[in-house]
Amino acid sequence: MKGHTDIRDLASSEGKEVLVRGWLYAKRESGKIRFLVVRDGTGYLQVVAFAKEVSPEVFAACGTVGQESSLEVRGIIRREPRAPGGFEMGLKELRILHSAVDYPLTPKEHGPEFLLDHRHLWLRSSRPHALLRIRNEICQGVRDFFYDRGFVLIDSPMFTPAACEGTSTLFETDYFGEKAYLTQSGQLYLEPACMAFGKVYCFGPTFRAEKSKTRRHLTEFWMVEPEVAFAELPEILELAEDLVCSLVARALDRNREDLKVLERDTSRLEKISKPFHRMTYDEAAKILEDPAIRARSDAQGAPPFTPGGDFGGFDETVLTENLDRPAMVTHYPTDIKAFYMQPDPANPSRALCVDVLAPEGYGEIIGGSQRIHDHDLLLARIREHQLPEEAFKWYLEIRKYGTVPHGGFGMGVERVVSWLGGVKHLREAIPYPRMLHRLYP
Amino acid sequence: MKGHTDIRDLASSEGKEVLVRGWLYAKRESGKIRFLVVRDGTGYLQVVAFAKEVSPEVFAACGTVGQESSLEVRGIIRREPRAPGGFEMGLKELRILHSAVDYPLTPKEHGPEFLLDHRHLWLRSSRPHALLRIRNEICQGVRDFFYDRGFVLIDSPMFTPAACEGTSTLFETDYFGEKAYLTQSGQLYLEPACMAFGKVYCFGPTFRAEKSKTRRHLTEFWMVEPEVAFAELPEILELAEDLVCSLVARALDRNREDLKVLERDTSRLEKISKPFHRMTYDEAAKILEDPAIRARSDAQGAPPFTPGGDFGGFDETVLTENLDRPAMVTHYPTDIKAFYMQPDPANPSRALCVDVLAPEGYGEIIGGSQRIHDHDLLLARIREHQLPEEAFKWYLEIRKYGTVPHGGFGMGVERVVSWLGGVKHLREAIPYPRMLHRLYP
Repeated sequence: MKGHTDIRDLASSEGKEVLVRGWLYAKRESGKIRFLVVRDGTGYLQVVAFAKEVSPEVFAACGTVGQESSLEVRGIIRREPRAPGGFEMGLKELRILHSAVDYPLTPKEHGPEFLLDHRHLWLRSSRPHALLRIRNEICQGVRDFFYDRGFVLIDSPMFTPAACEGTSTLFETDYFGEKAYLTQSGQLYLEPACMAFGKVYCFGPTFRAEKSKTRRHLTEFWMVEPEVAFAELPEILELAEDLVCSLVARALDRNREDLKVLERDTSRLEKISKPFHRMTYDEAAKILEDPAIRARSDAQGAPPFTPGGDFGGFDETVLTENLDRPAMVTHYPTDIKAFYMQPDPANPSRALCVDVLAPEGYGEIIGGSQRIHDHDLLLARIREHQLPEEAFKWYLEIRKYGTVPHGGFGMGVERVVSWLGGVKHLREAIPYPRMLHRLYP
Repeated sequence: MKGHTDIRDLASSEGKEVLVRGWLYAKRESGKIRFLVVRDGTGYLQVVAFAKEVSPEVFAACGTVGQESSLEVRGIIRREPRAPGGFEMGLKELRILHSAVDYPLTPKEHGPEFLLDHRHLWLRSSRPHALLRIRNEICQGVRDFFYDRGFVLIDSPMFTPAACEGTSTLFETDYFGEKAYLTQSGQLYLEPACMAFGKVYCFGPTFRAEKSKTRRHLTEFWMVEPEVAFAELPEILELAEDLVCSLVARALDRNREDLKVLERDTSRLEKISKPFHRMTYDEAAKILEDPAIRARSDAQGAPPFTPGGDFGGFDETVLTENLDRPAMVTHYPTDIKAFYMQPDPANPSRALCVDVLAPEGYGEIIGGSQRIHDHDLLLARIREHQLPEEAFKWYLEIRKYGTVPHGGFGMGVERVVSWLGGVKHLREAIPYPRMLHRLYP
């Protein structure tokens, strides 16, 4: 038996005899008929064995072969609307390549810790499969979006020399006798690059040593960060909108089957379009200070919103729950945001920054800003924040030689994937999640 | 002055007045004419100022404006075959946005340490610019190649729990009280994934804590690794060939200008096509054992080739120097290769593996193999290598449930970029190189 066909390509083989190779996903029987569901990574195929059409050995094997055995099946492809993919195979020959006994992940419900301990096998199940196929599209979608717009990929370093904003959430390593820290953002390295290439982006792993156990935290996650020379806040907002819209459209276009497996309400995603809702921090704060909202927050035991402070999960949910599109909250108080954010010239207590909040309570997916491009203002901010001036020497130099306004943002890929896939926990949106108590497999 | 035009798009503006914004790359004068070369990240534009066509202030500014000042120039675009890009601008208006004084990187020669210390500015120079644009194409080319062939991106973790092959070249970090190590390869994590998705790849940073100062080593570099279920060695060779050919063709197609800046002999690249030269390790060893080669090795002070041992830089050069296409060396001795490589059933002292050597002495760009898919053989090899069995429990499990032959390879992106760009040192092929004594900027 030579020359196999991928299950996703079977439509063109209707009426023909083909060979499919893969693994046994499920089986059932009904009298003289036995059904095998075979998966090969590209799809699922229902294989039908009639007692009178195959050898007694093959028919017997169809009854005894274990879940996740690897096998080759040969037979005729025919249309069958009730089968997954719309086609099934009438079995002629079966070859079991490797027999699996007592596969640990049975169709019954397993707890999340058990599943995460078996992530190397759990990847074969339909939900992780669907979600990681969405991740695949989103990652390629991000790359295509920036490549097509002339952005140059500038991979930022993973090892950084200085603990720029305190060491409390940094992973540290011994770097040949020096201390090095794992990156939390490539932004500082992109700013010089955008002065060289105009428009740049990085897209790689980032690290946070947070002792947090919430569903919104991973210690290792992938972030895409564009940075654009001459861009001011309005252009950054537009870039963020365009990126998110293109990714939603791509998933709706290319992940229909995956979204169905995840039982995602795609009507919610179909409403995502430009322009997103825009509100300032002060407008958002007014909503959150409403007594009715306060009462709800108290009733749910959520930490109450403090005027001038950052938003919590409850606050983000309140701000987006009645919206069908993401909300872009701009102009946060300068003193709760990073030192490099450009203060609004019209009101320096507010920063030219944006957080993009996904609808349906999925929370922040993007954070960005215009950066301070004036050397002396940036130096003053570094001193105010009591940051190590020497470590920022090279960063300050970008403001000494032909400085221009510029800005960008960071988007957490797992947050977007979990929003699009409709899963609440980020750990499902990355192949091998790393969390406070999770470093295996 | 609103609405700017990117320099790369100027061809469609011939005869029109446009605004270009960017930085002063160079200037010169000749009597009543002053020339500015402006760069904006998308290209270089020659701007010509005639004393009688601009105001005395603008003409004076054209003489005094410092290198890397940021500016806006407005004027008419006209064809000029001698100018970079084939067009120049007749200047009407000049606006200096930020005046740069004493830019450190002057057109004179600087030493590599000085340049690396100023990497944040050096990115603006023409060579790094060209090389990183090639990197941009190669990275997108890799993504497109695998995406278009139905591979699913499976980002492998950066944090790994066990020091699988000894700790001597691993970076270690404290992971909430446990020890974690930075990844050297995603392969072990891709093998389970290819059993779920059929064809997968990862493409991310990898780390080697090698105290090596050669031009061929970085402590942090990007590697792409495909892994394919059901694939045996011949299929892996073909995939490697196809990938390399597609990347060479892409660079030749889309990086013509960059290759010219680097003065790359593109006729050498144009010869790269399938099939690559194939030789076994034993055939290669025979070449290296030739007395004339030995004499050359001795004369150059290169470490002599030891039969049964691995190849050194001199050996790789010898094997490829007369070839116009890459060489694929297969069937290395099993005992000098990794524990997971499938022994050749016809001769178990040799492994079903491949190293791809680039021509012109650029050395190894790809290493790959078929993997052991038999559980008991893999277990025996783990024990022979005295590896911690417990740490490989999950990896062994992949051989317990529907195991199938599979294989893949790893390709170092900086090695490919430096080969294509014709630069000898990997440090130029990554935006912010990290080496033994280099963690800044």
